Amino acid sequence: MDEFKVTPWEVTGEIDYKKLTERFGTTRIDQRLMEKLKKACKGELHPMLRRQFFFSHRDLNLVLGDYEKEKGFFLYTGRKPSRGMHIGHLVPLLFTKWLQDRFKVNLYIEITDDEGFLHKKERTWGGVQSAAHDNILDIIAVGFDPQRTFIFKDSEYIRNVYPLLMKAARKVTNSTVKAVFGFTDSTNIGLSLYPAYQTVPTFFEKKRCLIPCAIDQDPYWRIQRDIAESLGHRKTAAIHCKFIPPLQGVRGKMSSSGRSESAIFLTDDEKAVKKKINKYAFSGGQATVEEHRKLGGNPDIDVPYQWLKILFEPDDEKLQQIHDEYSSGKMLTGELKSILVEKVDGFLAEHRKEKDNAEKSIQKFMYKGRLAKQMWEHIHE
Amino acid sequence: MDEFKVTPWEVTGEIDYKKLTERFGTTRIDQRLMEKLKKACKGELHPMLRRQFFFSHRDLNLVLGDYEKEKGFFLYTGRKPSRGMHIGHLVPLLFTKWLQDRFKVNLYIEITDDEGFLHKKERTWGGVQSAAHDNILDIIAVGFDPQRTFIFKDSEYIRNVYPLLMKAARKVTNSTVKAVFGFTDSTNIGLSLYPAYQTVPTFFEKKRCLIPCAIDQDPYWRIQRDIAESLGHRKTAAIHCKFIPPLQGVRGKMSSSGRSESAIFLTDDEKAVKKKINKYAFSGGQATVEEHRKLGGNPDIDVPYQWLKILFEPDDEKLQQIHDEYSSGKMLTGELKSILVEKVDGFLAEHRKEKDNAEKSIQKFMYKGRLAKQMWEHIHE
Repeated sequence: MDEFKVTPWEVTGEIDYKKLTERFGTTRIDQRLMEKLKKACKGELHPMLRRQFFFSHRDLNLVLGDYEKEKGFFLYTGRKPSRGMHIGHLVPLLFTKWLQDRFKVNLYIEITDDEGFLHKKERTWGGVQSAAHDNILDIIAVGFDPQRTFIFKDSEYIRNVYPLLMKAARKVTNSTVKAVFGFTDSTNIGLSLYPAYQTVPTFFEKKRCLIPCAIDQDPYWRIQRDIAESLGHRKTAAIHCKFIPPLQGVRGKMSSSGRSESAIFLTDDEKAVKKKINKYAFSGGQATVEEHRKLGGNPDIDVPYQWLKILFEPDDEKLQQIHDEYSSGKMLTGELKSILVEKVDGFLAEHRKEKDNAEKSIQKFMYKGRLAKQMWEHIHE
Repeated sequence: MDEFKVTPWEVTGEIDYKKLTERFGTTRIDQRLMEKLKKACKGELHPMLRRQFFFSHRDLNLVLGDYEKEKGFFLYTGRKPSRGMHIGHLVPLLFTKWLQDRFKVNLYIEITDDEGFLHKKERTWGGVQSAAHDNILDIIAVGFDPQRTFIFKDSEYIRNVYPLLMKAARKVTNSTVKAVFGFTDSTNIGLSLYPAYQTVPTFFEKKRCLIPCAIDQDPYWRIQRDIAESLGHRKTAAIHCKFIPPLQGVRGKMSSSGRSESAIFLTDDEKAVKKKINKYAFSGGQATVEEHRKLGGNPDIDVPYQWLKILFEPDDEKLQQIHDEYSSGKMLTGELKSILVEKVDGFLAEHRKEKDNAEKSIQKFMYKGRLAKQMWEHIHE
């Protein structure tokens, strides 16, 4: 028996997402909620919703209710700085951008440079800061609204949140962070505090907060939901996605700290993309062309197909055609991989173009845009 | 057998200070070090040194060595905001002022408003802030040099220290703060971090830091001394005082959170001072006038005499005279108490006058004085 494991610090095994929602006590996004979302956003749902990649939630129905009643809501996501972002890191961000575009809401993006530094003994402060800068450029490249988005580094914004951070911290015991994050007595005292900082942005507005994130991040928001009301705020809502599978197969999650061949990095050039996909991408195809023609491939376990489904082929008809041709054996593994390589190259070329332009928008997102300016003028108590 | 206990959070029993230095691993201030101090400060030693109220140290000899070699040093002390300060709270501050006057060195005073808030569930953020403001006025009234002193609240200065705080925090485990401060798994995660903040000012300059404090605070500096060198800084030095005894007797320490009759508060008027000293001050005198005239009083356990010795009678000759007359039975308990009442009234009247003037110096000490201005321009990494 091969059990799966999902915690904020470890994801292993083949994940049964139905079981996971039961374990975590979250709710599956059902057809009725999808219809409600579709009505609210006045248009087609994002492919990640249509295809149930975003599959679970907490209180999304309440968010939509608030939206209908014109009470509004706001979005919050974040990132621990790492030396290189891979496409898996972009997934919740791309979906968040879609939500912001559709609902015209404020978005807060927390860059946890403190966490990045505290987490690894060998990282230098300067190293974390340059990773943070690079990650911020990648985030800006996603195309958020600079007037409605505030990107901040924990270390820079700390004075503005400190009273609120202390209020949150006083509500959370060491027992709790041990249970939720696997901390021990050997954990350093900086790490012990930082889960409180991650709850703080959910209190930035009196409106309800919606957090798009991978399902393994849900435990953070359980802490928030435990303390929010006693601080005079609302429990945050969340919308959870599955994990984009690593190249080697549909188990665990893509990792930047593990083997570099398990992920496509945003800096990978065409040669690297081609090599990684052709060499490492786990295929659902048959061992020989003859067998493949006869038996067909299995898209459910085929990583290139899954990546197209999750991220790179938004057109449902085209995706269906690939699915059918691959299943029937008409399309070979090499052909499927070529389609993916081309899509990934196009995506990365576009991303890099946007990233090249991002430097000049940093001031707006972090300090001078409408929302950023408001935020710097405010001490949160 | 009545054992004593001294930890940063509890002081009970009759303290054997010789044993305590052995337990803590600190060094007694001997005659040779006193001579060295006297030579360095080019003048008389402070009564608290002459009378061995400041009695123990760590690396004070190295501080004096640095001073002789013109490398200099700096001073650091602090205060957790409380609703009312009593005279015991002023003791290390008065001594610190003397050190600053004699050696013309920079002084950093940390107001741990975060700790004050985190420590007690029932305190409000606003309540702690108003206590902090009031305490700062009391501190300024002591008469520090506004160009060489930086008073800061943790909550306000946090952005400037945050990288350094994270570096210190990464070096300290939860095990350590459990052992040193009695923290448990039920302690909130804010409190777990704050011992790191208390080490941070010792790293404000590359010079050696000297901390005047009561001996129960020494464990904080042991943490600093464990991590300092790996952060590229020096181990801090400290000079420790005994506890000013509560009115009820020479056991434990004066407490503001305990019974208000155990302490003289800086806001106590003449009537309150007279009543507290006459009614509660533990006397070393005899039960009747007749016996007292015959046997004499015992100054060693007499709180009014001890207070005169520690704080209110700097003139050695006058103190000796009181000692002799009281021991011989010539001076009665009531007479001794009257001397103390008058001294305390004079001290408090002077303090209140200075406090009334303090408000207009706040800007200098906290933001605009020479040292304060430098500090606000600097991010400590």
